[in-house]
Amino acid sequence: MSSTTSPAHARRRTRASTENERFGRPSSGWRQRGFDIIFESDTRPGQLFDIVLLVVILASVLVVSLDSVRDLGRENRTTFIVLEWGFTLLFTVEYVARLLCVRHPLRYARSFFGIVDLIAVLPTYLAFFFPELHLLIDIRVLRMLRVFRILKLTPYLSEYAFLASALYASRRKIMVFLSGVLMVQVLLGTVMYVVEGPENGFTSIPLSIYWGITTMTTVGFGDLVPHTNLGRAIASFMMLLGWGILAVPTGIVTAEMAGRRMRGDVLLRECETCGTTGHSQSALYCQDCGASMTPPDR
Amino acid sequence: MSSTTSPAHARRRTRASTENERFGRPSSGWRQRGFDIIFESDTRPGQLFDIVLLVVILASVLVVSLDSVRDLGRENRTTFIVLEWGFTLLFTVEYVARLLCVRHPLRYARSFFGIVDLIAVLPTYLAFFFPELHLLIDIRVLRMLRVFRILKLTPYLSEYAFLASALYASRRKIMVFLSGVLMVQVLLGTVMYVVEGPENGFTSIPLSIYWGITTMTTVGFGDLVPHTNLGRAIASFMMLLGWGILAVPTGIVTAEMAGRRMRGDVLLRECETCGTTGHSQSALYCQDCGASMTPPDR
Amino acid sequence: MSSTTSPAHARRRTRASTENERFGRPSSGWRQRGFDIIFESDTRPGQLFDIVLLVVILASVLVVSLDSVRDLGRENRTTFIVLEWGFTLLFTVEYVARLLCVRHPLRYARSFFGIVDLIAVLPTYLAFFFPELHLLIDIRVLRMLRVFRILKLTPYLSEYAFLASALYASRRKIMVFLSGVLMVQVLLGTVMYVVEGPENGFTSIPLSIYWGITTMTTVGFGDLVPHTNLGRAIASFMMLLGWGILAVPTGIVTAEMAGRRMRGDVLLRECETCGTTGHSQSALYCQDCGASMTPPDR
Amino acid sequence: MSSTTSPAHARRRTRASTENERFGRPSSGWRQRGFDIIFESDTRPGQLFDIVLLVVILASVLVVSLDSVRDLGRENRTTFIVLEWGFTLLFTVEYVARLLCVRHPLRYARSFFGIVDLIAVLPTYLAFFFPELHLLIDIRVLRMLRVFRILKLTPYLSEYAFLASALYASRRKIMVFLSGVLMVQVLLGTVMYVVEGPENGFTSIPLSIYWGITTMTTVGFGDLVPHTNLGRAIASFMMLLGWGILAVPTGIVTAEMAGRRMRGDVLLRECETCGTTGHSQSALYCQDCGASMTPPDR
Repeated sequence: MSSTTSPAHARRRTRASTENERFGRPSSGWRQRGFDIIFESDTRPGQLFDIVLLVVILASVLVVSLDSVRDLGRENRTTFIVLEWGFTLLFTVEYVARLLCVRHPLRYARSFFGIVDLIAVLPTYLAFFFPELHLLIDIRVLRMLRVFRILKLTPYLSEYAFLASALYASRRKIMVFLSGVLMVQVLLGTVMYVVEGPENGFTSIPLSIYWGITTMTTVGFGDLVPHTNLGRAIASFMMLLGWGILAVPTGIVTAEMAGRRMRGDVLLRECETCGTTGHSQSALYCQDCGASMTPPDR
Repeated sequence: MSSTTSPAHARRRTRASTENERFGRPSSGWRQRGFDIIFESDTRPGQLFDIVLLVVILASVLVVSLDSVRDLGRENRTTFIVLEWGFTLLFTVEYVARLLCVRHPLRYARSFFGIVDLIAVLPTYLAFFFPELHLLIDIRVLRMLRVFRILKLTPYLSEYAFLASALYASRRKIMVFLSGVLMVQVLLGTVMYVVEGPENGFTSIPLSIYWGITTMTTVGFGDLVPHTNLGRAIASFMMLLGWGILAVPTGIVTAEMAGRRMRGDVLLRECETCGTTGHSQSALYCQDCGASMTPPDR
Repeated sequence: MSSTTSPAHARRRTRASTENERFGRPSSGWRQRGFDIIFESDTRPGQLFDIVLLVVILASVLVVSLDSVRDLGRENRTTFIVLEWGFTLLFTVEYVARLLCVRHPLRYARSFFGIVDLIAVLPTYLAFFFPELHLLIDIRVLRMLRVFRILKLTPYLSEYAFLASALYASRRKIMVFLSGVLMVQVLLGTVMYVVEGPENGFTSIPLSIYWGITTMTTVGFGDLVPHTNLGRAIASFMMLLGWGILAVPTGIVTAEMAGRRMRGDVLLRECETCGTTGHSQSALYCQDCGASMTPPDR
Repeated sequence: MSSTTSPAHARRRTRASTENERFGRPSSGWRQRGFDIIFESDTRPGQLFDIVLLVVILASVLVVSLDSVRDLGRENRTTFIVLEWGFTLLFTVEYVARLLCVRHPLRYARSFFGIVDLIAVLPTYLAFFFPELHLLIDIRVLRMLRVFRILKLTPYLSEYAFLASALYASRRKIMVFLSGVLMVQVLLGTVMYVVEGPENGFTSIPLSIYWGITTMTTVGFGDLVPHTNLGRAIASFMMLLGWGILAVPTGIVTAEMAGRRMRGDVLLRECETCGTTGHSQSALYCQDCGASMTPPDR
């Protein structure tokens, strides 16, 4: 199954470039086939492998969760232990297979998913010596990030890229905004500590700041509540303020998304020949240089 | 009343096509008249029937609700029983009438509303044998979805279609977003379980995840609350994170709606001859086929 | 002071047309002067009157509020009684003056503000006979709506009109949306009643619906909380759903506002000669017919 | 180091104009060097000074916060006292240095940051005589606003300016909106006081208004909760109303931001020669003066 020159292969090359370039696809033999199954997801067996893997990860996370429920955990002690060791052995085999089917195993071991894959199996082994590490097993949920690997083949990828790039473009605005909010929190938290004081439950400034965040994000647990009239007035002010500035992150992200959408859909298609922007999606020729433009296929 | 060739009838045909095509309008007689009254809503009696039906459904839901209020339910036991059986008989008659006035009764029985209509009357009968099924009667509220049938005749339909299509177009983005949020929840829920532990009320991982959802959606019931300093710090982080990412679904839906509105109102006027979009509001000729375009009059 | 032909008067005419046309400005004498002071706000004394009135209304609302505080109310019993009767007499005099200074007193008495002005003084008098009516005095806060009268002279009016018209244009979408949300509430409220039951505090279906609204609007009082695992799972679903659909009304209003802003500011300046839209704010000549365009002065 | 004619200096001039023009940069000697280090942040030592200052401010705020935690504060009494006096002396030295290195010390002393710098050191000294003033030390957090000084050199400044100007442009709309919301609060708060009454915890009208704000901002502490059926119905209405109008401030800010973004990115490119705006991204010549325009390179 070495369709090196077919167009289908060319298509795969482009899509799978990340793993291919970084870890190196073995040139032939069972290691190549293993790489295509484990790391790629554009062949039938490759897709199947990814789906099975996701189901197994989900099941292992579910087992750890249910194990923590007191009654369930006590009654089915052995079942849970067997299941957990089963999943751990499975993941260990998979981890070794990944190392074997790659031209540069060290590069994989040091990559993000390489580290995640390793620390997904470590807790069970380490729990022999340090039983409290047992719970870290739930870090396995991070492995589910691979779900986006499968999504690569579906229209979900562009949606994901759209969301990610809109959030990435807004990161500076959101950081400026959050740092301002946190300064306001520290100030108002201190004021509430002075006004309400330890006799009303505001026992320290950090606790008052925690309460302030609870209030301004409109969560409002109610475990800590102002009891003096001045405290209630300040709390009312904080709530209205929090309500008002809730609009800001929303505005930032929305404006970014709407702007992108407009540019992408309506206004800013760019001519690949002369670089002029401002063409509509249906334009067939560049407004400026007359070069032919291929409309996007979606 | 067989105005087969009048323009009013043609108009009705188009609007009522769904029921007409799927279940078949009887060709004549009392069954045709029944169909026009029960299934259509563009004649006087048809509209009246729909309005009366809605009022009756609302009343029956109200009766079930009030019946559940302890004091009311005990005092007016017989009144409620009589009312409930009244409504059930009424709905049974209506269900049978719907079956009779349609050319393909089975198609109706298997349609969404056919099933809803059936299970709206079943609980009362089944409550003879299984009294606890009694409460399922409130499923009758689903029948109120028919309200959109009446809306068909009003300008509300386009608003409804606008909302529905904007949400439908955003479904993939929202699913990608929600799956990401859920993964974060599982991770942070486990961390909170480890940090706070059963002695502070976080008795299991599923409960911690439930608490995490409570916190990040800014609901904040307050039945479960962090008590350690580290737990409070993580909770503060989760609240600010939840606040920040609350912006994302809003941004998705808003950008979709604003984009649609712009396209519809300002930028993407469609040529009625060749269907090409992307014309400005002031365009006099189609960019593609050169057909004359009449600018909108608003 | 009968500047009937001055441009200042013409300006006033336009602005004050509402009261003038509906109630009739007396043609001369002290009644005309009274009308200008009480009903208009474009002369010095007229503005002063409106501001003093607002301060007095605010003070009277404050007095009623403070009176309700138990300790304050008991200690300063007589002070509050004197103040309340003072405000009531003042408002009564003002009400009579309004009736006198108008050509059609009955039209004023039946207008919105005429009724509000009347029921703002009635409770104090009626409290002689029905003491519990005393608290209705706070209806005086409605009189503060007159604040928008003063705003007429400031740039706030256009902002107010912008907000009001954007909300008005979105009313149908919001109603369709709210009716859908309420149906979901009734259904899920019933489900929660069945799942949690009276033993966990969900004593009736209306109470469960109230809890559902509390949860889906992310208010989360915490007085009612699910205790079973199934109930918590449903609650989690409801919270995420509420979070998601919180985006919808925001999207509706934002898209409306953004659309308006774009049309107004950037894209849709209309040529008054030929009616072509799509001119930029700085355009000096119509793109289509070459007619001269006066740029807006803001 | 008097590089008066170098382009690097010219660049600095422009950036640092605020402090330079207002307080006066000394013409030579150690005072000039001190000014460059303390007030400017475009030389190496100047940047270092600002970063060290921020870290020290953060540390001093942290110390005050931790001091308020009961157990920590009691155990490390002397450590905290020494640290606080250390920070206070440091800030006093810095304050005197600022006064010395400036041509017009009084102008600095009366500027916003001059006053903040003074009241950041005063509480420790005044706490000798009035111990309760001790807590006001946290006002030091205001000094952190200087962080935006460092941001001047980074791309964060434009983001900050964007956020600030969008909020500033929306201020009138938000004020009109907030005043309307507050009037509704006073009315509904009074209604809830009448309906629920002191026996259900609503002991006064101001408290009911506080509860109303708690509810409509979706904070929902749960310390005060309606107990009557009518009260719950009104609360449900208030929650849905609060949910709906949460959309308004979001809409205001978002529409403002999206509008700005569109103008800036897509539609309103400015001519560098005559300053006319409103050019499309693809424009090659100014619409007004015909000067050649270079399209942006992004």
